[in-house]
Amino acid sequence: MNNQLPQGFRAAGVHCGIKHDPDKLDLSLIVSDKASVAVGVYTQNLVCAAPVKLCQQRTPSDQVRGVVINSGIANACTGEQGQQDADTMSQLVARACAVDPQQVLVLSTGVIGQMLPMPKIESGIVAAAQQLSTERTALLAAARGMMTTDTREKITSRHFQAGDTPIRITGIAKGAAMIGPNLATMLAVVMTDAALPVDVAQAGLIDAADESFNCISVEGHTSTNDTVLLLANGAAGGPALTGQTLAAFQATLVEVCEDLAQSIPADGEGASHLITVEVHGCRTRTDAVIIARTIADSALVKTAIAGADPNWGRIVSAAGYAGVAFDEQNISLHVNSHLLYERGVPVPFDTEKVSASIRADRNTSLVLLLDEGTASARFWTTDLTTEYVRLNADYHT
Amino acid sequence: MNNQLPQGFRAAGVHCGIKHDPDKLDLSLIVSDKASVAVGVYTQNLVCAAPVKLCQQRTPSDQVRGVVINSGIANACTGEQGQQDADTMSQLVARACAVDPQQVLVLSTGVIGQMLPMPKIESGIVAAAQQLSTERTALLAAARGMMTTDTREKITSRHFQAGDTPIRITGIAKGAAMIGPNLATMLAVVMTDAALPVDVAQAGLIDAADESFNCISVEGHTSTNDTVLLLANGAAGGPALTGQTLAAFQATLVEVCEDLAQSIPADGEGASHLITVEVHGCRTRTDAVIIARTIADSALVKTAIAGADPNWGRIVSAAGYAGVAFDEQNISLHVNSHLLYERGVPVPFDTEKVSASIRADRNTSLVLLLDEGTASARFWTTDLTTEYVRLNADYHT
Repeated sequence: MNNQLPQGFRAAGVHCGIKHDPDKLDLSLIVSDKASVAVGVYTQNLVCAAPVKLCQQRTPSDQVRGVVINSGIANACTGEQGQQDADTMSQLVARACAVDPQQVLVLSTGVIGQMLPMPKIESGIVAAAQQLSTERTALLAAARGMMTTDTREKITSRHFQAGDTPIRITGIAKGAAMIGPNLATMLAVVMTDAALPVDVAQAGLIDAADESFNCISVEGHTSTNDTVLLLANGAAGGPALTGQTLAAFQATLVEVCEDLAQSIPADGEGASHLITVEVHGCRTRTDAVIIARTIADSALVKTAIAGADPNWGRIVSAAGYAGVAFDEQNISLHVNSHLLYERGVPVPFDTEKVSASIRADRNTSLVLLLDEGTASARFWTTDLTTEYVRLNADYHT
Repeated sequence: MNNQLPQGFRAAGVHCGIKHDPDKLDLSLIVSDKASVAVGVYTQNLVCAAPVKLCQQRTPSDQVRGVVINSGIANACTGEQGQQDADTMSQLVARACAVDPQQVLVLSTGVIGQMLPMPKIESGIVAAAQQLSTERTALLAAARGMMTTDTREKITSRHFQAGDTPIRITGIAKGAAMIGPNLATMLAVVMTDAALPVDVAQAGLIDAADESFNCISVEGHTSTNDTVLLLANGAAGGPALTGQTLAAFQATLVEVCEDLAQSIPADGEGASHLITVEVHGCRTRTDAVIIARTIADSALVKTAIAGADPNWGRIVSAAGYAGVAFDEQNISLHVNSHLLYERGVPVPFDTEKVSASIRADRNTSLVLLLDEGTASARFWTTDLTTEYVRLNADYHT
C-alpha cells in the first residue's frame, strides 16, 4: 500500500450516528498543520447544497486549515437552516482544532431535503479532532467516512521529485453511486505538500478536473453537492513550483484525478461494465468530449454493452446526433480492438467473438475515429443493467 | 371509428417478405390522385439514411403523388447502393402508379447496416399498387405496414369546417419503440385534403412538429431515419386556406401531431408509465422545452416513476442542471396534482398516497412551476423499467 497522506496533513474518520449502522463511518476530518492553499470546482447545478455555497464563498484561499465531510445527509434543499448548519459545522471544527471558522471548508453527501442532526455532528467533530493522525489507517478512515453507497473506499496516492524535494499528491473520493441516498454525489479531496500559488492551483485543478471528473457519467445526473477540492500546503518545503516541476506536478495531478474519477463508475452499483469511450480525430477537444459524452449517455449503447451486444449502429448513430459537425463517411469504430465500422461502412465481423470479448472483461473499450482534426477525449461510464433499474426503482423517498 | 383517409388519397399495406412473419405487413403505399403539396421535417442525425436524403432532395414540393414505406430494414449506413435502392423504390412506384419517379417519396425503418431485398420490395410495390383503396381497412393496413416493434397501429383523424368546405387531417405513425430492430425510428405521414401553399404547409409542419414530435423522447436517441411528412392535396376543394380557416387548420394539425406523438411513448416496449412533464413560468418556450426534456431524459427520474417513487429531489435537481438560468427559490413541483415542493422548500406530504397515485395510473403527470416568465412546454416520455433494459440488452446485432 502506497497510499499515505502528504506531509503536514492529518486525517480521521468516525461514526457519529447519521447512518444507522454503527459499523459505517459518517464523518471525516482533514487538517493541515499550516495554512494551506485551497481551491475547488463545484457542481453546475443551480439547485446546489448549503455546504457547496459555503465552499464557493471561502475558496480560492491560501488560509485553509481544515475540511469536514459528513455522509448520510446532503444538507441540500434545506434553505436558511441548512446554511446555518453548514456554518456551524465550520465553527465546531474551528473550536475543536483551534483554527478560525473561515479556515474550514464543509462537504456533505447523502439524502437531500433533510436537516442535519447537529448534536451528532458536534460529537462526531469532537471525536474526529481527537483521532487526527498522519497514519495510513487515518487516511483510510477519512475515505470511508465520506462513502454513501460506495462498496469500497477510493484512495489514490502518487509522488514525484521536484528537484531535491519529494512531492506527494493524495486524493480521496466518494462515488456517484446510482441508487440513492436520493442523489448520486461525487466528492473528492486532493491533498498535496507541494507549494503552489493560489491562481496556479486553481487553474491546475480546473484543467485536471476537465480531463477526469468532468469525463465520467453514470446517468448524466449532476448532483446538488458535487465538489472537488485541492489543498496544497507546501509542507514538503522548497519554493513554489514553476516550469518543469510544475509540469510534473500537473501531470501527476491529472493521474490522481483520472484514477479517482474512473473508480467512481467502476464502483457503480448495479453495473457490470466500466465503459471507456475514446474519440479521436476531432477539430477541438470540446467536440471530442461532446461526442464521447453523447455515446456514454445513450441508454441504447449502455444496454447493448450490458447484453454483450457489439451494436455499432447505436454507437455510430449516437455520435451522429451529438450536435458536432463531421463527415459521416470518415467514421470508424473499434469495440475492444475489433474494427466494426470503417469510413462510413459496416465491416463484416465475427459477432460471437466480439460479444465474447465484452462478456469476458469488466472493462469495455469503444474507440471512435473521425478525420476532422487531431483532438481527442476519453470518457468513462457504466453499462445499464436490469440490476441498476431495480436498485433505482426500489429505492424509496 | 372516425379514422378515414382525406379525400383524394388511397392507401395500401402488404406483406412482401422483408419480415419473416407472413402475418406482419412490411410495405405501405399512399397515393394522392392529384399532385399534392408535400413538406417534411427530418432527423438531425448526421448519420442519416438513404431514403431521408431522397426526401430531403424532393421536398418541399407541390407535385408529389406517392409515398412508399417499408419496415424491417432501415436502408441506413448502406452507402451508394442504399441511395440507388431508395431511388429504385421511387421508380417502381412510378411505374406501378403511372407517375413520375420525382413525384414519389420513400421512407424506411428497421435494422440498419443491411441492404434491402429489392426483388421482394418490387413485388410488394406492385401488389400494394393493385390494392390501393380509400377504405378504412386500407388506411389501417398502411399504418400496420410501417410498424416495427410497435404493438399497435397509430392512426389519428380530425375534421373541421373551413367555411362550407369540410377539411380532414389524418395521420399515421410508427413508434420509437425501444428495442431494435437496432434503432428506434419515428415515422409519421400526415395527409390532408386542404389546399395549402407550399411555404404555408412547411411552416405549419415545422411549428406542429415542434410542439409534438420534438417533445417526445424514449431514450434520447435520435434515429438515422426519423421523418414526418405532411401531404396537402387540396381535394376538399375551395381556395387555399388563409386567415381564420388557416388558424383552424393549424390548431387541428397540432392536435393530430400531438396525438400521434404521444402514442409513441405510450406504446413504448417495456414501459409501464407514460410520463407527461409540464414546465410553466419560463422566460421562453425554448427554456421550458430544455428543462422539460432534461427531466424527461433523466434515468433517475424515469426509474423513480417505474418504482412509483415520488422522488422530488431527482426531478428538481434535473431541472437544476438543464443549463437554463432560474431562481431556485421559486421552483414548485406537483406530481399527479400533489404539491411536493413549493418555492424552493420540500412540502410535507403523504408518500404512500402519492406513490399509490403513480401505481394506479399508467399516466404520470409532473408539473414544474418557475417564476421567470409566462412560457410553457409539455414533453412526453416513458419510465425506465427492468423490462426495458432486458429487451434492449437481449436484442442482438
